[in-house]
Amino acid sequence: MAEVPLYGKIEEVLASEIARGDHQPGDRLPSEDELLARFGVSRITVRRAVQNLIQRGIVEIQRGRGTFVLAPKISQELTKLTGFVEDMHSHGRKASARVVTQGIVAASKRVAEHLGISKGTRVMRIERVRLADSVPMSVDETYLPLEIGKEIVRNDLRVMPIFTLLEEKYGVPLIEAEYSLEAAAASAYVADALGIPEGAPIFRIERTSFTTKGRPVDYEMLSYRGDLIRFVTRLGRQKKGEAPQSKVSPSLRRR
Amino acid sequence: MAEVPLYGKIEEVLASEIARGDHQPGDRLPSEDELLARFGVSRITVRRAVQNLIQRGIVEIQRGRGTFVLAPKISQELTKLTGFVEDMHSHGRKASARVVTQGIVAASKRVAEHLGISKGTRVMRIERVRLADSVPMSVDETYLPLEIGKEIVRNDLRVMPIFTLLEEKYGVPLIEAEYSLEAAAASAYVADALGIPEGAPIFRIERTSFTTKGRPVDYEMLSYRGDLIRFVTRLGRQKKGEAPQSKVSPSLRRR
Repeated sequence: MAEVPLYGKIEEVLASEIARGDHQPGDRLPSEDELLARFGVSRITVRRAVQNLIQRGIVEIQRGRGTFVLAPKISQELTKLTGFVEDMHSHGRKASARVVTQGIVAASKRVAEHLGISKGTRVMRIERVRLADSVPMSVDETYLPLEIGKEIVRNDLRVMPIFTLLEEKYGVPLIEAEYSLEAAAASAYVADALGIPEGAPIFRIERTSFTTKGRPVDYEMLSYRGDLIRFVTRLGRQKKGEAPQSKVSPSLRRR
Repeated sequence: MAEVPLYGKIEEVLASEIARGDHQPGDRLPSEDELLARFGVSRITVRRAVQNLIQRGIVEIQRGRGTFVLAPKISQELTKLTGFVEDMHSHGRKASARVVTQGIVAASKRVAEHLGISKGTRVMRIERVRLADSVPMSVDETYLPLEIGKEIVRNDLRVMPIFTLLEEKYGVPLIEAEYSLEAAAASAYVADALGIPEGAPIFRIERTSFTTKGRPVDYEMLSYRGDLIRFVTRLGRQKKGEAPQSKVSPSLRRR
């Protein structure tokens, strides 16, 4: 058995101390000098160990302040169309929402394209901050066709998920959705809503959900905290001789 | 038909000018003052329009320099296990690689867990920068079991994809893979390799590929440029009464 390099050992010691709670989320990790003294190794070895913990999303550097322990991430499955409340419940978290604004707006070109309507058509726009155990996880902008949107906003959207209302109260089954995921920097607005620094990494997710007959019924733009969420999935290999058929619509591939 | 708000109109004018090449990637967008003069609207309206273009990943603010047009992103499907070269070819891009380092290392706890071996076991580590039409797209760290890894590194990895070598030269079929996606900030090292600013948004993707009998054969840590890639997929709704069965392994969900 070959030797694990020294930085790898220190990395694992620190990672397991964090995993068992010796260093809590929000705690400052011991400084480079403290780690040097504790492990009796070179500065470059300590730096490499800490750099690997940063790469793994376990700690982060806050400029001029030091290295801090991050909260463990929620591993959210990207295998089925699910709503925020369903996702949080499957992780034993309590979901809630703050409604920032709801009202009728004219569809922009982008919204119109996703909902399959003409630009300028009136649609319902709902903006919410979604929380898990009172921690803001995402800012959601939702656009609904006007008729169903007017029904949806009669409900208390702080507690009722839109997916549940569509499916169980208004008889609009959800069949599937198209997703687009980007890694982006939080704008000042999103950062403020989520309580993270401006420029912090976020997932920007566009999702269009379809009901029967391929009719789009819900277009969302979701901004998820990069420090609290990861997405996990399992994908099969393209079979030999199988046509490399696209599962997503041409417009989604081209965009 | 209701009126599209003014900022939405200006947003679309600028977006379509960018789409048809009036403003090229890397160009500075006209300043706020120039846009004010051109459209004859209030500063808040111009700001909102530009803010929306930022949200859409079409332009970005570079502090103290202005607002710049971003290169259009590659929409990469996240529906089948595919390698970098296959992905780039499906978008008509030429793929190549720079091999940063290749050699035998002792498996860290993390690498060992993913390859189903004991910590400290010797494995082959390959680090490459992957390019599309000579533009760096990702930094890939690959870990292979030693026996197959020794064979793989006999090949010219600047031009030969590891997936192709495994499947076509060494008879190791790939069946499926587990993915974990994070939105993160580029470390100094990754930023330098990709030619992006430190702290810029990246996708950090961990991927473990399995061959027959569920045997892990390739563990990768990929850092993709957030400004050049988006991932797209289509997901079906959980059927009523269907058990909410997880498609990913318990260790991946918990991590």
